[in-house]
Amino acid sequence: MHRVVIVGGGFAGLYAAKSLARAPVDVTVIDRRNFHLFQPLLYQVATAGLSPGDIACPLRWALRKQKNARVLVGEVTGIDCAARRVLLRDGEAGYDTLLLATGATHSYFGHPEWAERAPGLKTIEDATSIRARLFLAFEAAEREQDPQRRTAWLTFVIVGAGPTGVELAGSLGEIARDTLQGDFRQINPSDTRILLLDSAPRVLSAFPADLSAKAEHHLIDLRVRPRLGLKVVGIDAEGVSAVGSDGVEQRIEARTVLWAAGVQASPLGRLLADATGARVDGVGRVFVAPDLTVPDHPEIFVLGDLAHVENDGKLVPGLSPAAIQMGQYAARALRDRLNGKSTRPFQYWNKGTLATIGRHAAVADFGRLRFGGRLAWLAWLFIHLFFLIGYQNRIVVLLRWAFAYLTFNRGARLITGDLPPLPRFSLNVKKEPR
Amino acid sequence: MHRVVIVGGGFAGLYAAKSLARAPVDVTVIDRRNFHLFQPLLYQVATAGLSPGDIACPLRWALRKQKNARVLVGEVTGIDCAARRVLLRDGEAGYDTLLLATGATHSYFGHPEWAERAPGLKTIEDATSIRARLFLAFEAAEREQDPQRRTAWLTFVIVGAGPTGVELAGSLGEIARDTLQGDFRQINPSDTRILLLDSAPRVLSAFPADLSAKAEHHLIDLRVRPRLGLKVVGIDAEGVSAVGSDGVEQRIEARTVLWAAGVQASPLGRLLADATGARVDGVGRVFVAPDLTVPDHPEIFVLGDLAHVENDGKLVPGLSPAAIQMGQYAARALRDRLNGKSTRPFQYWNKGTLATIGRHAAVADFGRLRFGGRLAWLAWLFIHLFFLIGYQNRIVVLLRWAFAYLTFNRGARLITGDLPPLPRFSLNVKKEPR
Repeated sequence: MHRVVIVGGGFAGLYAAKSLARAPVDVTVIDRRNFHLFQPLLYQVATAGLSPGDIACPLRWALRKQKNARVLVGEVTGIDCAARRVLLRDGEAGYDTLLLATGATHSYFGHPEWAERAPGLKTIEDATSIRARLFLAFEAAEREQDPQRRTAWLTFVIVGAGPTGVELAGSLGEIARDTLQGDFRQINPSDTRILLLDSAPRVLSAFPADLSAKAEHHLIDLRVRPRLGLKVVGIDAEGVSAVGSDGVEQRIEARTVLWAAGVQASPLGRLLADATGARVDGVGRVFVAPDLTVPDHPEIFVLGDLAHVENDGKLVPGLSPAAIQMGQYAARALRDRLNGKSTRPFQYWNKGTLATIGRHAAVADFGRLRFGGRLAWLAWLFIHLFFLIGYQNRIVVLLRWAFAYLTFNRGARLITGDLPPLPRFSLNVKKEPR
Repeated sequence: MHRVVIVGGGFAGLYAAKSLARAPVDVTVIDRRNFHLFQPLLYQVATAGLSPGDIACPLRWALRKQKNARVLVGEVTGIDCAARRVLLRDGEAGYDTLLLATGATHSYFGHPEWAERAPGLKTIEDATSIRARLFLAFEAAEREQDPQRRTAWLTFVIVGAGPTGVELAGSLGEIARDTLQGDFRQINPSDTRILLLDSAPRVLSAFPADLSAKAEHHLIDLRVRPRLGLKVVGIDAEGVSAVGSDGVEQRIEARTVLWAAGVQASPLGRLLADATGARVDGVGRVFVAPDLTVPDHPEIFVLGDLAHVENDGKLVPGLSPAAIQMGQYAARALRDRLNGKSTRPFQYWNKGTLATIGRHAAVADFGRLRFGGRLAWLAWLFIHLFFLIGYQNRIVVLLRWAFAYLTFNRGARLITGDLPPLPRFSLNVKKEPR
């Protein structure tokens, strides 16, 4: 039996595996995690709207009925192209065809020291740790006696005004304006300042300019302050330093900074390049042939955010629909190959892009059809529900959204993990001689 | 205004705070966590039936409408009875009346070194880490080539056959028998061995003997093997050593051991005893007067699992209904006191106890009325839903239970955290000379 190894159980890997259900092949999906994560909703876990389990689906459950597929939890450490096997931290797996789809993570533009101060959002652990940070900041502000330091605790900086940054900023705006109303006794959550920084001159710069303007308008409604044309040059425990286009350095005192800027392909891309002589682009994506295979290695496909592939001279974007299409394409190309047929080059079909900005508001770019507001928000809502894997997750997520819509509450705002030092305070202590 | 400080936002603390809503007092609830945790369902988080957010309720949200109450996230490190203030790791809070309700954790009977090998279940972090351990064991078994080691990966030992141990064992039985069917290719989850150890001669020894027998019968249906009259004398990375009543040592090879045995009161009990001269019992519970106050300190109440109080010569049990009643009693006693009235001693009203053993099965002890099976299971289900705090949680939990009932799936089986070393394996690798 033809052995297919798929590394990565994200959109590209999972859809490739599913598309091979009826092919005469033996499929092995290898992932460090035992679940598929619906990344487009990860920001809602970070902002306490959803729970981790709501947007994850066990890979074994997703593939339980597919008899030709198995799942292995393990970490791939290398690829031995000559012997056609992937090396794991503890083991190995041989392949006839390899599908590499290990995605991307965030990059700090050569400043790895910022990672600790400004966490990014790629994993479940990132999301729960950001959640703890956000809500701890309000707890700290409630305890802080010094007005200036209190302001710094109530100031949130989000670096990067792409979809993730915009969605995080919008959710945080809703938390401050709606969710936390009435929760505190010393602070007023409405005093929260949310600054959305980007070096680009507008938010959502991948969208058409009119939609960027709409999004910016919605953000301002949520009291998010876009600070555009600003390049971050420093992040420390007290705040962020940024330089404007005029070259003047600005300082923002903020205790909470989130990173939603750079992207960087999984290190497996460079490993593969070293092993095959393939080239990678500036962020580590592997340049692949039009059929998504590695040059001179037709048995190796690279898919999703790890692949650098261009259509009509434009890079296919790192979005889940593109990853799904690549996964399905690779499966079809392999089936064709096994049947002795040839396959046309991969063609990305842009079904449109959406970004949501809190309650009622979103922007939608379906090519000639572009719109914002309530209709875009409903489109966003139903498309995300539709692509979420697992019936239970769909219903629970819909229910949580309905509750959040009606009550403004976000039930999952748990601060877990170790409690860091908090501002000292003295409450109700009578200053009398003993 | 009379200053009431409540330490601990569990059942006793939260119900005390709520019962003081209309009293002319200033209430401060201090907890290390920003949420109230519905502990009776924590085992369902550990066994992937529910998500952490489903059984937690933000304390601020629970008390948001109560204008005389504030919440502080902080860790209490001591009590200064003379100056009437509690000391926090970073701060202090003065009180006129102190309610101490910091609960209990598990105890390893003088073997703290067992904690790492046999985690107990008291916090959200415990639950998600046990969840990762349980499902990683199946992943490891799937990779393991050696039959003996595979058996050890598929052997689960639960130490302690009280309600928590029985509920964990029953859920694990369901996971092995139902949830994981079809998920694996190398192992058969039905080969899982679940051993429930206790030094007592029967499971649920706090229940009447006929209900213990019923529970044992249900457990055996779920392929759980009760191993009673066995005292654990050693736990290591390879398994458990235990001594039977005949004095013969037995060895069980098992890679996964869970601890559901001893209980130990929060260390604040001993701190309070040192500060006030009060006595503590063998597990650190504070002996309190019949009105739940500390001798010679009528301004300090000790509530819930931290209190040692007897009614009719019997210790009031460490159960949530008892904690709720103590919280409500302390609030009433304080209100009476402020009104110059006296209060009758605390009287625990045993409304009955329940323990569930998987699908359809539970045992209920309502004094003269005792029953098991489907009816007990329904009683368990509705009582737990009723006491769960927050409408959203109730509906989501009911929905998840309905799904689990219909599909046998447990969606929240996420393995999070760092991936530990797993058994080496070699899959599909052609052994041919290169």
